[in-house]
Amino acid sequence: MARSSADPCIVVIFGASGDLTSRKLLPALHSLYLQELIAPGTSIVGTSRSAFSDDAFRKRIREGVRGYCGKNPVGASWNPFAQNIHYVSGDATDERSMQELGQELAQIDAEEGTKGNRVWYLATAPSLFSPIAGQIAKAGLLDTGGWQRLVVEKPFGFDLESARTLNASLADHYREDQIYRIDHYLGKETVQNVLVFRFANAIFEPIWNRRYIDHVQIMAAEQGGIEDRGTFYDQTGALRDVAQNHLLQLLSLIAMEPPVAWDADVIRDQKVQALKAVRRWSPDDCRSVVVRGQYEGYRQEEGVSSRSSTETFFAAKMYIDNWRWAEVPFYLRTGKKMPSKTTEIAIQFKRVPHLLFDRTAVQEIDPNLLVLRIQPDEGISLTFGTKVPGPEVEVRTVDMEFDYDSDFGSGRPAAYERLLLDCILGDPTLFARSDEIDQAWQIMDPIVKHWARGGRPRSYPPDTWGPEASDDLLRLDRRSWRNS
Amino acid sequence: MARSSADPCIVVIFGASGDLTSRKLLPALHSLYLQELIAPGTSIVGTSRSAFSDDAFRKRIREGVRGYCGKNPVGASWNPFAQNIHYVSGDATDERSMQELGQELAQIDAEEGTKGNRVWYLATAPSLFSPIAGQIAKAGLLDTGGWQRLVVEKPFGFDLESARTLNASLADHYREDQIYRIDHYLGKETVQNVLVFRFANAIFEPIWNRRYIDHVQIMAAEQGGIEDRGTFYDQTGALRDVAQNHLLQLLSLIAMEPPVAWDADVIRDQKVQALKAVRRWSPDDCRSVVVRGQYEGYRQEEGVSSRSSTETFFAAKMYIDNWRWAEVPFYLRTGKKMPSKTTEIAIQFKRVPHLLFDRTAVQEIDPNLLVLRIQPDEGISLTFGTKVPGPEVEVRTVDMEFDYDSDFGSGRPAAYERLLLDCILGDPTLFARSDEIDQAWQIMDPIVKHWARGGRPRSYPPDTWGPEASDDLLRLDRRSWRNS
Repeated sequence: MARSSADPCIVVIFGASGDLTSRKLLPALHSLYLQELIAPGTSIVGTSRSAFSDDAFRKRIREGVRGYCGKNPVGASWNPFAQNIHYVSGDATDERSMQELGQELAQIDAEEGTKGNRVWYLATAPSLFSPIAGQIAKAGLLDTGGWQRLVVEKPFGFDLESARTLNASLADHYREDQIYRIDHYLGKETVQNVLVFRFANAIFEPIWNRRYIDHVQIMAAEQGGIEDRGTFYDQTGALRDVAQNHLLQLLSLIAMEPPVAWDADVIRDQKVQALKAVRRWSPDDCRSVVVRGQYEGYRQEEGVSSRSSTETFFAAKMYIDNWRWAEVPFYLRTGKKMPSKTTEIAIQFKRVPHLLFDRTAVQEIDPNLLVLRIQPDEGISLTFGTKVPGPEVEVRTVDMEFDYDSDFGSGRPAAYERLLLDCILGDPTLFARSDEIDQAWQIMDPIVKHWARGGRPRSYPPDTWGPEASDDLLRLDRRSWRNS
Repeated sequence: MARSSADPCIVVIFGASGDLTSRKLLPALHSLYLQELIAPGTSIVGTSRSAFSDDAFRKRIREGVRGYCGKNPVGASWNPFAQNIHYVSGDATDERSMQELGQELAQIDAEEGTKGNRVWYLATAPSLFSPIAGQIAKAGLLDTGGWQRLVVEKPFGFDLESARTLNASLADHYREDQIYRIDHYLGKETVQNVLVFRFANAIFEPIWNRRYIDHVQIMAAEQGGIEDRGTFYDQTGALRDVAQNHLLQLLSLIAMEPPVAWDADVIRDQKVQALKAVRRWSPDDCRSVVVRGQYEGYRQEEGVSSRSSTETFFAAKMYIDNWRWAEVPFYLRTGKKMPSKTTEIAIQFKRVPHLLFDRTAVQEIDPNLLVLRIQPDEGISLTFGTKVPGPEVEVRTVDMEFDYDSDFGSGRPAAYERLLLDCILGDPTLFARSDEIDQAWQIMDPIVKHWARGGRPRSYPPDTWGPEASDDLLRLDRRSWRNS
């Protein structure tokens, strides 16, 4: 499928002095430039309160690109790109600063032919999303005659109410189709492949339901701790950082009904339908279906309150109350300082209904397991029972493996590349719509409320799979986590 | 599943001077001996019209074992086994010869404690099956007080009528549960695994039917020609040598309904049900659904008639008229002098019912294909569509592979080992029952009749996939053979 070509535009990044800009966003734009996927003249304007000259900013970006692709960009692979990088310092909540920014942008329009087209990228603290989005509008910066697209980073809201407030305040100045709420998981190849895998193959859809699936495990385990993000993390926690967005996105891709077309709203409609069907736990329910954990030593980390009750581990059981999924548990889990870095979706099928081999062996034959490995070691594996060679009918579980690197090489476009390109092309398929965000928060809000009533996270030693309560969550259902 | 232990017995082999005995049967028995799977005292008596001393016969066998396992058996791995090998020369259709054989056997019973238990193995020309089986009985050799089992090699009958005559003549002296009609394909691990794969996994059975399967290809291609078997082969041909037995056995294992237990008669009942449902072509139908081929140069081979119309290639389309398989074609193919030696079953699933990607690409996405590789390169592969990494939604077919050697090492019990052991243990699961043979011949008989009315095989060059008519057979159905 050939995609439409990109219009020239200006990508304006707020919070441009931050790590995200130099380590992810600009390297992604640079890569798109090298692949000639963005139009000539496309410019980048970074802004933040820090003072940088254009050259100092470009130097910082160049280092980011080197860190990203492993070599210093030079000559034609750098200079024309760098010339279109600018920096404007100022306070984005201040009208006068914004007008100065507007003048700079207008001048670039005149020189580079970017036609008033804008990507407004909010890479700032969440508290600034609404004020900056409002100030862009108030300063008249949307009145250029070109297209306007606003990219909002995560976390989108702190709970249901604040997410709704943020959605409403953005809606004051932007149409829904102008708002690109980023969830970088959706930019990952392996995540996009969930839909391709489900709907480009005729053999999985017939068994993708409660009749054949016993349960689903969705896990995003990190081996690292919070590193130098203590202040941010302590205000955020695992639920807002990973579970409310990434884990629920994966859940909706696995659970959704087949869309009729590869179309942004058609796909997002179906995802919303799936999220709407996720059972809402009451705050009281949460006692038995949610586990909050905090690794030992977390409160001694820099930037973390010594009395912090922020969770670094989250596990929960979810049900999707519809015909396809009734009574099939979806177990979600994410945490820091786990024994391995693994994001994966494991579909555990039911046991065979009747075993024709030795009767005592029924429980010994592992049910089929389909694992979609999101990162790292991207791939797919399917376990199945096969006969062990020999005179007896002995069944053993073996693996079939598909591995991205073997089939496609190790080069895969980074998530931010894909998402920035989609935004420039005006394709919102891989971005969260306001009603998705609202549904995801409706699911998570009771948990936030439950935790806010008191209690503390259960502590767990680093390099373990979280508190024991997490294992108990499945053990009570006579199941167990993979890897634990 | 622990199997019952073997009774001591005497394995009496008729046609013992032939290749099968020295190259397959005795090496298999020797291997069972090394694994201590046969009881102490178990003895082997070879007989044929050729004159051998016990020692000469043992020497011949020892060479067979060396050829089989790559080294000369010595010491404890050979001597006790060899001591229990005997040879009796004589005419098995002659009563007096048989009585002498009986005396020898009685003496072994007395010395070795084999208790009158007998495996009578007919490794002779097919024309001798009935006379020898009858003579054993007439000479009173079945009246020993021990168990009696008769093993009959292939081909079992020349057409439906002769197969029925043979079944009837055996039934004069043997109960059905005493007759072991051998099809060495059933002894292969990969063939046994067809049932384990289907019924030890919950995810395949739901899609194992006409709703999801487009068609099935069952192929047994040989790279070699007829070698030094010209006389035998020219009287037999591909239909009797491979199609009527091996291909229909594979078909019945793929097509059968789930048996309620791993029990000889339960499994064979279901196989018979599947064969009963195979559509009977009239001799006239055969013109359009069967292809008879003969490789160029076949008539110049030693032992072959210069006007031979024996087929060295067979292809046919079959339908199984039941709820599971209605209108799903099973394409069967076997031939000599093909481009590769491959026996495999390929299950081709239907295309996705609706594609949500670019509409023009619907026909470009390969449907899922499950291949059970019987030999060589034993294994299983499943192809499925996955997203090609990149900014577009491009789908490519990739493979998941399971390989026997990787998971279980390259050592697998040979088919004859398994089958001889089963016979000694009295487990007829992997042997063809009389009604299976009858059904298989009912399927093939119209083809034999059609060919007998005249016409000649289509010739094909060696190292090709058979005559063009074979490709046309599928092309008319808008399908094509794998590998061709």
